[in-house]
Amino acid sequence: MTTEKPMQLGMVGLGRMGANLVRRLMRDGHRCVGYDRSETTVRQLADEGMVGATSLADLVAKLDAPRVVWLMVPAAAVQPTLEELVPLLDADDVVIDGGNSYYRDDIARARQLAAHRIHYLDCGTSGGTWGLERGYCLMIGGEDEPVRRLDPIFKSIAPGPSGAEPTPSRTRSDGTAAEGYLHCGPSGAGHFVKMVHNGVEYGMMGAIAEGLSIIRHANAGKTTRTIDAETAPLRDPQAYRYDIDVAEVAEVWRRGSVVASWLVDLTADALARSPDLADFAGRVSDSGEGRWTVQAAIDESVPAPVITTALIERFESRGLGESTDKVLSAMRSEFGGHAEKKG
Amino acid sequence: MTTEKPMQLGMVGLGRMGANLVRRLMRDGHRCVGYDRSETTVRQLADEGMVGATSLADLVAKLDAPRVVWLMVPAAAVQPTLEELVPLLDADDVVIDGGNSYYRDDIARARQLAAHRIHYLDCGTSGGTWGLERGYCLMIGGEDEPVRRLDPIFKSIAPGPSGAEPTPSRTRSDGTAAEGYLHCGPSGAGHFVKMVHNGVEYGMMGAIAEGLSIIRHANAGKTTRTIDAETAPLRDPQAYRYDIDVAEVAEVWRRGSVVASWLVDLTADALARSPDLADFAGRVSDSGEGRWTVQAAIDESVPAPVITTALIERFESRGLGESTDKVLSAMRSEFGGHAEKKG
Amino acid sequence: MTTEKPMQLGMVGLGRMGANLVRRLMRDGHRCVGYDRSETTVRQLADEGMVGATSLADLVAKLDAPRVVWLMVPAAAVQPTLEELVPLLDADDVVIDGGNSYYRDDIARARQLAAHRIHYLDCGTSGGTWGLERGYCLMIGGEDEPVRRLDPIFKSIAPGPSGAEPTPSRTRSDGTAAEGYLHCGPSGAGHFVKMVHNGVEYGMMGAIAEGLSIIRHANAGKTTRTIDAETAPLRDPQAYRYDIDVAEVAEVWRRGSVVASWLVDLTADALARSPDLADFAGRVSDSGEGRWTVQAAIDESVPAPVITTALIERFESRGLGESTDKVLSAMRSEFGGHAEKKG
Amino acid sequence: MTTEKPMQLGMVGLGRMGANLVRRLMRDGHRCVGYDRSETTVRQLADEGMVGATSLADLVAKLDAPRVVWLMVPAAAVQPTLEELVPLLDADDVVIDGGNSYYRDDIARARQLAAHRIHYLDCGTSGGTWGLERGYCLMIGGEDEPVRRLDPIFKSIAPGPSGAEPTPSRTRSDGTAAEGYLHCGPSGAGHFVKMVHNGVEYGMMGAIAEGLSIIRHANAGKTTRTIDAETAPLRDPQAYRYDIDVAEVAEVWRRGSVVASWLVDLTADALARSPDLADFAGRVSDSGEGRWTVQAAIDESVPAPVITTALIERFESRGLGESTDKVLSAMRSEFGGHAEKKG
Repeated sequence: MTTEKPMQLGMVGLGRMGANLVRRLMRDGHRCVGYDRSETTVRQLADEGMVGATSLADLVAKLDAPRVVWLMVPAAAVQPTLEELVPLLDADDVVIDGGNSYYRDDIARARQLAAHRIHYLDCGTSGGTWGLERGYCLMIGGEDEPVRRLDPIFKSIAPGPSGAEPTPSRTRSDGTAAEGYLHCGPSGAGHFVKMVHNGVEYGMMGAIAEGLSIIRHANAGKTTRTIDAETAPLRDPQAYRYDIDVAEVAEVWRRGSVVASWLVDLTADALARSPDLADFAGRVSDSGEGRWTVQAAIDESVPAPVITTALIERFESRGLGESTDKVLSAMRSEFGGHAEKKG
Repeated sequence: MTTEKPMQLGMVGLGRMGANLVRRLMRDGHRCVGYDRSETTVRQLADEGMVGATSLADLVAKLDAPRVVWLMVPAAAVQPTLEELVPLLDADDVVIDGGNSYYRDDIARARQLAAHRIHYLDCGTSGGTWGLERGYCLMIGGEDEPVRRLDPIFKSIAPGPSGAEPTPSRTRSDGTAAEGYLHCGPSGAGHFVKMVHNGVEYGMMGAIAEGLSIIRHANAGKTTRTIDAETAPLRDPQAYRYDIDVAEVAEVWRRGSVVASWLVDLTADALARSPDLADFAGRVSDSGEGRWTVQAAIDESVPAPVITTALIERFESRGLGESTDKVLSAMRSEFGGHAEKKG
Repeated sequence: MTTEKPMQLGMVGLGRMGANLVRRLMRDGHRCVGYDRSETTVRQLADEGMVGATSLADLVAKLDAPRVVWLMVPAAAVQPTLEELVPLLDADDVVIDGGNSYYRDDIARARQLAAHRIHYLDCGTSGGTWGLERGYCLMIGGEDEPVRRLDPIFKSIAPGPSGAEPTPSRTRSDGTAAEGYLHCGPSGAGHFVKMVHNGVEYGMMGAIAEGLSIIRHANAGKTTRTIDAETAPLRDPQAYRYDIDVAEVAEVWRRGSVVASWLVDLTADALARSPDLADFAGRVSDSGEGRWTVQAAIDESVPAPVITTALIERFESRGLGESTDKVLSAMRSEFGGHAEKKG
Repeated sequence: MTTEKPMQLGMVGLGRMGANLVRRLMRDGHRCVGYDRSETTVRQLADEGMVGATSLADLVAKLDAPRVVWLMVPAAAVQPTLEELVPLLDADDVVIDGGNSYYRDDIARARQLAAHRIHYLDCGTSGGTWGLERGYCLMIGGEDEPVRRLDPIFKSIAPGPSGAEPTPSRTRSDGTAAEGYLHCGPSGAGHFVKMVHNGVEYGMMGAIAEGLSIIRHANAGKTTRTIDAETAPLRDPQAYRYDIDVAEVAEVWRRGSVVASWLVDLTADALARSPDLADFAGRVSDSGEGRWTVQAAIDESVPAPVITTALIERFESRGLGESTDKVLSAMRSEFGGHAEKKG
């Protein structure tokens, strides 16, 4: 579809996410100017219709005022980018941080840019590599006026109402949530909601992954554990004699089940490609939002055991408990003379 | 659609689930005989085309051999029902337990029925009150032959391939997982997978609910906590000054986000109906599968912190930690003279 | 014992802890000047030999330079106290924060006081109401020189070597750890170690309290739960038919067991006084250190599930999960038509 | 001290625990007959005054009726030992299982032996390798009469009242808890309490080990993490610049602190021997009681998050989460194109 009101937007950072945002905007007739450190990347998008820029200054020069500049760079690169970009901008321009910045940084940055009468919006952007086709879920923070002004941009990026069936009990017809984007509140509110979204994601991922692991080990009773004082024997080995096809389980859960979800869809896809996930060692990164979510829960005195343990599970996956575990083994050796079992 | 091979099935238990299974089967042309303790319920379904039965014996008499009898009764009622039903059946008949029985009971029951040359299938059935339209995800355990024989039944109950987009990387074309039903393995395997499914459900639900609670309390900095030695003051109250519309957040997450899922759909629906969920006190039941999943994880030595803490969270919601908490308060009083804060 | 080198010390805050520190210091011949908002409190200690002060200025005036002023006030009162106190002090005076301040505040305060050439020590003080007789465990942070200068003070407050049997494998004879006080590092290191100490305390307390609760409910099989789809029946009620005297269990664990500890001693004491702890409702406060410990663990990427869940357990004890739990009940109602069980 | 009423006891299993029990009993003048598979072991104890036996039959023959036979063998060896031993015994003899059997097995075994009019006691024995000097904490289950009959045995094994200061609030003077042994209830009650004791031990150990790990990593701000989209940078590196001597922290916590405990004593000892615990890889075994404790908590609907996560932490230490973690990495790769970070 072509939107009634095409706009211009400058995109800084043309990685996976930035490039697909540009493509999705261009499909709707918006004019995009793009800059990335990699000239090759810029050239590639230029071939698809984007106006390429050779520098931040060039990008700013190629946009009509009041400008809209969307940053799609790693959280740690936002501040340096802003320091270079802001002096190039004019009053009433809008900068959007579409990455995963900490919402507290947004509050400070919005205040700094306000001193130059530049608007600063924080926009949590979910959808990953699949967003080009599926649309991106947008969680937006900042002042009302620029959010309203950029509505055509957000509408083009978001999935639109067809992204899911209507919510049966929903009676309100105002607002944009049912199109997949939402102005959550003042500065920082967008990234706050996106932060918690990612915390929820950690918990859901942990639940699915643990469940499939329990199913994968449903054959635990087929192998015998050694009988010694160090190891608890399985009391009912005959209850664990199933060889269940985990990939097929993920596939069947996609339809009609209570756990049906995009994360189960993705899991089924990964397992269809490689049932034993041989490409992965299981060292699971965490990129900040999970930690911040836990910190927010603690600050608010909200018990969040599921999200919290999902974060800790990722730490464990990277072997970060080693120092703790050595103390545990040492204590066992002290009080019980237990030698640590090898292997 | 009318399936090529209509079958007969006796349904025992016509509650929410049983009734909708019957309706879904009749839509596809299968002949259903139904029995329930409540005559009213039987009459109601009879009005929709089901053959009503006044007793188990009547139900059995109204089915042609080899019979198919589906039990849709509470887990605790399965054994008494079987004790009454089995003497009425003949060799080669099939009994399906479609409820949430413990898979270890299936193993024992299948063995008992095998002595009478009656087949016993366990079938985890997910989909809840929405299954009539959406179809039910079926996880089946038992011998190959009767599972194959009942394929038209399972196919009619399951959502079918249209229940979700095809999995991109999936190359295999055999099997029924992509239609929403799966023969998981021998006796008990179906309820084992369903049990873990529910464990996953607990974890996903906990993650979503906690996340929304963290968002709801994003205004924690607006209220002041008393300054005393008992209470940690919020260090950054200015970082918690958001009043975020939680119902709209649930709605926006339904489209394009990584956490998009049927559970988020349902949450959005509940919040659309009542943003503060005034009908609920927050005493969350658990009905067995979560506990059994945790037990299986422990037996298998699989760490499952997310699912496990989700179960514990439900215990806490029902105030079951009171005895623990009193000891904690008593200790604090002992070593620090801390009086317990009231209210 | 009378120490070889009596010193002078000003104590600000004569609550439980401050008063007992003064008493312990006076026993060893140190001269103490004390100030508290409550004149009664000051008078009471003055009767025991302390020099009473009517204001911070009076306290400072009654001490010889270079002065030593120990603050024993709630964490939130430290900063206002410092703002009033510092202008009254001279170069080379030492201020000690003996409370439970956040170690990051120590770093900032030490820097501020250094600008006036005043030394700032942070001293985590463990021992609670029992410290008068038992001595206090001290964890100290700050510059070397003032820590060395105050050694007689710390030695008098700490339990001394008789507080526990010598550690068998300990060969080093330097250092003061075996007397119950330790210079942990530069500014903040003392409160950092004390903070983690309290995190450990949370975890140990949780373990003991949960264990006793499991023992108290060992009679769970004697009561019958209703059979319905909402409640998991206890599969082996005959395995839970014990009425165990929890107070006696705590008492027996005090001797010879692996869990023997001061916290078990205190628990036995509380249960000896009231076996059902009728004075407590089980609303367990947390006063900051637990939260900060969890935050430190996350910042350091150290998995700390035991300490973390102990903190969350306290949140749950105060009903803070209510908003989460309502969403859980609402979801269950949505997908399964489960009505929430009352009471 | 020599007890007023010396008894005879047969000990089956002369490992660490069994041998020291024999030594402690002999010190008090009891006559001990001992059997072990290893002749060398038997001979060694015989040199210290024990009557050696060459077989179970020989052991039984060397005891006067009514006999007392104490089993101190691995849990998995109890049943085979009983099958050989019981036919050799007479009515009114007493068998004690002093190991870590599952309490449910005790219930069954007591019933089996009762058919032969032989008494069966279950006795949880805590104290480990240090029990010879320190005494053992005994948690006893079974009938009243044989427990009373064996009182001199239990009294000699237990630490006695000098094992700890009297509990201040304790007024009752009956019972043996203050001497370090307790008749907890009927068959299984002793091992039930011992099982939970070990669960508490897991939680306390986890808390201490995690705390020391957080302190060990207080220098996390000194190393720089790479800046990329995969890694959360440490926001306040300057707050994590402490190099704290963990061994000295464990030592200082032994005196006067709230966490003072035998487990901290042992930790200090292990760290005094090797500050970096180089002998340990951190693969922490669990030998059954922790799992059973968690199962009991779940059966009783008692939330026990601290003990439960301590168990899960041990699973993680042995790399058992690998299958879960691979699914997590696979999901991240699917939705975000995140390549797993190596090393």
